[in-house]
Amino acid sequence: MKKAINIGILGFGTVASSFYHIFSEQKGELDSIFSVPINIKKIFTRGNSHPVPENIKKLSVQNASDILEDKEIDIVIELIGGIHPAKDFILQAISGGKSIITANKALLAEHGEEIFKKCIDKKTNIGFEAAVGGGIPILRAIKNGLAGDKVKSVYSIINGTSNFILSKMTKEGGKFEDVLKKAQEKGYAEADPSLDINGTDSAHKLAILGRLAFSTSLSMKDVIIEGIENITQLDISFAKELGYTIKLLGILKDEDSKIEIRVHPTLIPSSSLLSKIDGVFNAFLVNTKFAGPLSLTGYGAGGNPTASAVMGDLMEIASRLVNDDSHHDFIISKIKNKLNIKTKKDIISRYYLRFSAMDRPGVLSKISGILGENSISISSMLQKGRKVEGSVPIVITTHEANEEELFKSIALCDKLDVISAKTMVLRIEDKIE
Amino acid sequence: MKKAINIGILGFGTVASSFYHIFSEQKGELDSIFSVPINIKKIFTRGNSHPVPENIKKLSVQNASDILEDKEIDIVIELIGGIHPAKDFILQAISGGKSIITANKALLAEHGEEIFKKCIDKKTNIGFEAAVGGGIPILRAIKNGLAGDKVKSVYSIINGTSNFILSKMTKEGGKFEDVLKKAQEKGYAEADPSLDINGTDSAHKLAILGRLAFSTSLSMKDVIIEGIENITQLDISFAKELGYTIKLLGILKDEDSKIEIRVHPTLIPSSSLLSKIDGVFNAFLVNTKFAGPLSLTGYGAGGNPTASAVMGDLMEIASRLVNDDSHHDFIISKIKNKLNIKTKKDIISRYYLRFSAMDRPGVLSKISGILGENSISISSMLQKGRKVEGSVPIVITTHEANEEELFKSIALCDKLDVISAKTMVLRIEDKIE
Repeated sequence: MKKAINIGILGFGTVASSFYHIFSEQKGELDSIFSVPINIKKIFTRGNSHPVPENIKKLSVQNASDILEDKEIDIVIELIGGIHPAKDFILQAISGGKSIITANKALLAEHGEEIFKKCIDKKTNIGFEAAVGGGIPILRAIKNGLAGDKVKSVYSIINGTSNFILSKMTKEGGKFEDVLKKAQEKGYAEADPSLDINGTDSAHKLAILGRLAFSTSLSMKDVIIEGIENITQLDISFAKELGYTIKLLGILKDEDSKIEIRVHPTLIPSSSLLSKIDGVFNAFLVNTKFAGPLSLTGYGAGGNPTASAVMGDLMEIASRLVNDDSHHDFIISKIKNKLNIKTKKDIISRYYLRFSAMDRPGVLSKISGILGENSISISSMLQKGRKVEGSVPIVITTHEANEEELFKSIALCDKLDVISAKTMVLRIEDKIE
Repeated sequence: MKKAINIGILGFGTVASSFYHIFSEQKGELDSIFSVPINIKKIFTRGNSHPVPENIKKLSVQNASDILEDKEIDIVIELIGGIHPAKDFILQAISGGKSIITANKALLAEHGEEIFKKCIDKKTNIGFEAAVGGGIPILRAIKNGLAGDKVKSVYSIINGTSNFILSKMTKEGGKFEDVLKKAQEKGYAEADPSLDINGTDSAHKLAILGRLAFSTSLSMKDVIIEGIENITQLDISFAKELGYTIKLLGILKDEDSKIEIRVHPTLIPSSSLLSKIDGVFNAFLVNTKFAGPLSLTGYGAGGNPTASAVMGDLMEIASRLVNDDSHHDFIISKIKNKLNIKTKKDIISRYYLRFSAMDRPGVLSKISGILGENSISISSMLQKGRKVEGSVPIVITTHEANEEELFKSIALCDKLDVISAKTMVLRIEDKIE
């Protein structure tokens, strides 16, 4: 049995300083649970934008190698974020037999499989609950709780910034740019919010979740990604009129071992649970073969919630280390198959189409003609006669259609001389509960 | 490393037959994940009300000892339910070094600590995710996900039968007795539904949850329990008028290490998430110190959801056995303190009071006089003049008041000659989100 568990922290931003605070508060209890002291031995603080507080200066080191090469450090908690140098640090730590806890979704999405493989080779542990859904224990629910079930689909709201902006636009009106600016002023959006609003951050988390949910290899290239940059008040109010709310959803589906993985703004029924998840909350609706539908909601980001998830991983890994238990989360060792990923050619969905049409006779017949020729069947049509910048919006919702054919026919429509701007295409998901 | 993992099942009712079905479907995958075969070796079927299907007759044994004394059986899945003989069977299995999976909430609530202790002594595993919340991985979320956080409170809907009846009464009207009868006809309530509707079943689950959430010893005597038998349409419609919905809640609170644990029908804001959990769904709203509020919802009962939770436990325990890992869930070994439990003397709540008063002048002044003398401050009053069986209902909601003083003053009010029936007292919880 070990005499102590020593931790090295890489980075000292918001999550790390919350973690330090929570850890210090719980340390007495941890030591008593594990019967050996658990210590934060060193913190790599260089390049950190926050000032290093006086009380942790004694732990502060200026070179990551002071942690990575320290043979007494058992667990490295990586909270730098980004790919470089985090990836090299983590790989070096694993090579040295250290266990890893990380909240780095970009790194795990891009290089997770390489990192998992190295952990298995070196018989070290890795915890990454904090990388997806902040304080919501969604990875544990999927990895362990549903380990003997089958996940059929996951509908998720996994980016707080985008959800905050869309909720605000829906409830209070306003243009995307103005609402984003306000979110930045209030600290709900970063100075450079592009990864949040263009869907990349959601896609990172979804790729991590998809690997565990379907025990499959997945790369970022597999994910269909669209952001919320082009959503207008016009779309929000048309959606509302049709009984829908627009949310940036991360969607996973498994149909006969063919996987769908996509992130995009989606029209969902305004009566659904997910449509009511507002502001910075995250939510997961998991449909399983046997347990039925499960939902989990909570804070998906922020210092304390993310640090709480890091604490959960620490408890689990420390418990293994204290007991000299080197066996692995079977679900990580299980990721070896590459299931088929659906491309636009295979995906079937309902669509919301907003055409910007000149106010001339015969427009609708031209559009519906093209749609009909491409086997796109119309479910409803709204034409409010509101002139927006010289053109009139025509909204059409379709029945289920093939995504490739849909985009092909929209490209044809957009070439019509009566169409004055690029048509807005959004997916509709009706059956999310 | 073990050459095979052998399972013995005690009982073959709804959950066991769902488990058998799911297990058989997944067996190929399980064998490949664990690299050793996982087998159901024997099923104890005596006393089972369902007929034993032809294909499992070869596994069927008529004496539990055929399983309990079989040295090749590693895991006993107890799905008989009830205290006797389940308790003796489980203790005997643990003595023989076998790991246990059980969905038996009554047994764990009453004798869980004795059983946990024996598991720790004998270094065997125990899984009981299926005992609380069916397919919802709530115990894992509390035990592992929040292991490094602090649970401040849990508000839960953990009895599907009661929730079905209350939802139905709220949405469609009808008397308690009639709705219960319909629920029985449809299979949503058992022939003898008393444990479900009198709050005992919820209390069993809450006691199990409370032990894990607060790492404390808890017995059924600690739980304040009231059922839904006396809820009338009058209460449901008054509640609605006041902006509330009546739900049977299981409540856990930790205030400075003083614990509240109670089950009772509760008025909760009609805008809250829990008020929207209808029918046989269960829900948990967990407030934590660091992760913030978390919610989990799903099917709380039924063959497949419960069997899915058993499968999750099986995966975890099989993984430990295959890896010769005998270390323990630290949270179970942690249950050793006995925190203070609040009694009615310590509990503060808001209350809904429905008096049945004779339609005479001065009634209100008599009631409010008694309340005032006992420091019960009135928040609102409703008197609709509806004569119900010779008396008029007067509804008073209070500000926060001491529960002992409240019940003392209601006892005094009920002695007034203008009060014609026992006053209905329900608690109000406003801050459940």
